[in-house]
Amino acid sequence: MTTENAAGTGGPDREYADLGATTENAMAIAETSMDRVREIVPHETLADRIRGKSVHATGDPEFQHLIRFTGATDDDELAADAAIADGGPADADDQPVRAGARAVLDSRPIVTDITMVKAGITGRGHDCPVRKAIGNGTELAERTGMTRTAASVLELDRDGVYDDAIAVVGNAPTAALALADCIEDGTRPAVVVATPVGFVKAAESRARLREVAAAHGVPTITNVGRRGGSGLAAGLTNELIHVASDVRQGAIDAAWVPESPETS
Amino acid sequence: MTTENAAGTGGPDREYADLGATTENAMAIAETSMDRVREIVPHETLADRIRGKSVHATGDPEFQHLIRFTGATDDDELAADAAIADGGPADADDQPVRAGARAVLDSRPIVTDITMVKAGITGRGHDCPVRKAIGNGTELAERTGMTRTAASVLELDRDGVYDDAIAVVGNAPTAALALADCIEDGTRPAVVVATPVGFVKAAESRARLREVAAAHGVPTITNVGRRGGSGLAAGLTNELIHVASDVRQGAIDAAWVPESPETS
Repeated sequence: MTTENAAGTGGPDREYADLGATTENAMAIAETSMDRVREIVPHETLADRIRGKSVHATGDPEFQHLIRFTGATDDDELAADAAIADGGPADADDQPVRAGARAVLDSRPIVTDITMVKAGITGRGHDCPVRKAIGNGTELAERTGMTRTAASVLELDRDGVYDDAIAVVGNAPTAALALADCIEDGTRPAVVVATPVGFVKAAESRARLREVAAAHGVPTITNVGRRGGSGLAAGLTNELIHVASDVRQGAIDAAWVPESPETS
Repeated sequence: MTTENAAGTGGPDREYADLGATTENAMAIAETSMDRVREIVPHETLADRIRGKSVHATGDPEFQHLIRFTGATDDDELAADAAIADGGPADADDQPVRAGARAVLDSRPIVTDITMVKAGITGRGHDCPVRKAIGNGTELAERTGMTRTAASVLELDRDGVYDDAIAVVGNAPTAALALADCIEDGTRPAVVVATPVGFVKAAESRARLREVAAAHGVPTITNVGRRGGSGLAAGLTNELIHVASDVRQGAIDAAWVPESPETS
């Protein structure tokens, strides 16, 4: 198995190494680890990078099959899809990865549900402000009895925080459900990464998020099933940052991550 | 399925609800979630609580079979084991859970490998100082090329931080390997919780930790296989805090978590 990346979907190995890895040993481990992942997961498309990262983050080769994508529906994005598909390997599932990388390049805020997910977002390779929802909406939670995470999402949304943001839910199904409600009510995140875990509403919250997001053209990266969690959500978000770094360094053709209408 | 806990191993459901859950909905979800886990995992012994928490944290019923325990080997602890086994349901695997709960009751430091694991430790139900290793040992890492996390563990160990502490490794296999070296060299954590994840050295680092810890009587809670991660490590540590809370509130017989020789 070659350690070269497929054309256009990655950089040299050193670039693909975990951005948090700065010492020789750490970079060797990060590279060997991604080499192992590449033996297991195809690495042709941008979506493959997210699937590969899910395997890397969970230590489970099967996780690649649990990742789901929903894409934008507007004409600009669909035209970009068609143009990109003409120019190289592409996957209908690439669009949310492009949208996420574009949002990173535009230094859009990364908004996580809980502190633990925020703590897992790499500090390197981007200038996005990173904030967490939890801690907001305390009064709303106490008054209504809803979860603190759901209330925190609704509170931030009232201030417009989620529009054009990278919205990340790693832990709380009720945060994912609240975010779905916000999207239904008109909020438009640049991309949603949602992998809440557990036996109560986790899979259901992601299914509802996919349904609402697909109806409104909001790109999402989620998984199916009960598994997931904060480490996975942070890992997938970090992979969007890695893709953006590869665009910035020329390892991915910038045409693959077109500027959004607002910024061009 | 009853929602009552087995005698001695838990409190009323409300007490078992996630300590982070404060609103009505959150407590309802936390309780339903643990009810689902109790349908899947036996809940007779203290070790079962850790196995159950692993299922809760990963969303995967099979994870209960991947948890491993090593126990203390000194005479005091073995005598305590025998006494407890006479008095109620017990499991040879309970000892590290008792050691962990005792360390929480004694407000010993919780020392995590990385920030993300620290962020996942509940702030309720304990007075343990919580600190992370990462950020220490920078000079050592740069000089030797070892990983930053391994260097950070060695640096903290030089200051005696890990003796009698609750040592938690959620992410970095090299931190687990460094901790094993420290134990071999005489360091004695109160308990080690280690669930580093991945394809390079993760399973091997936990195997080495178990071997060294068993040889030196250091209680450990780990898993086998490539899976694991920060969320799991934080969840298992939080379960030690929950057990300590149940002891404090009388839901678990205090005799189950005997005072350590130093504090009695």
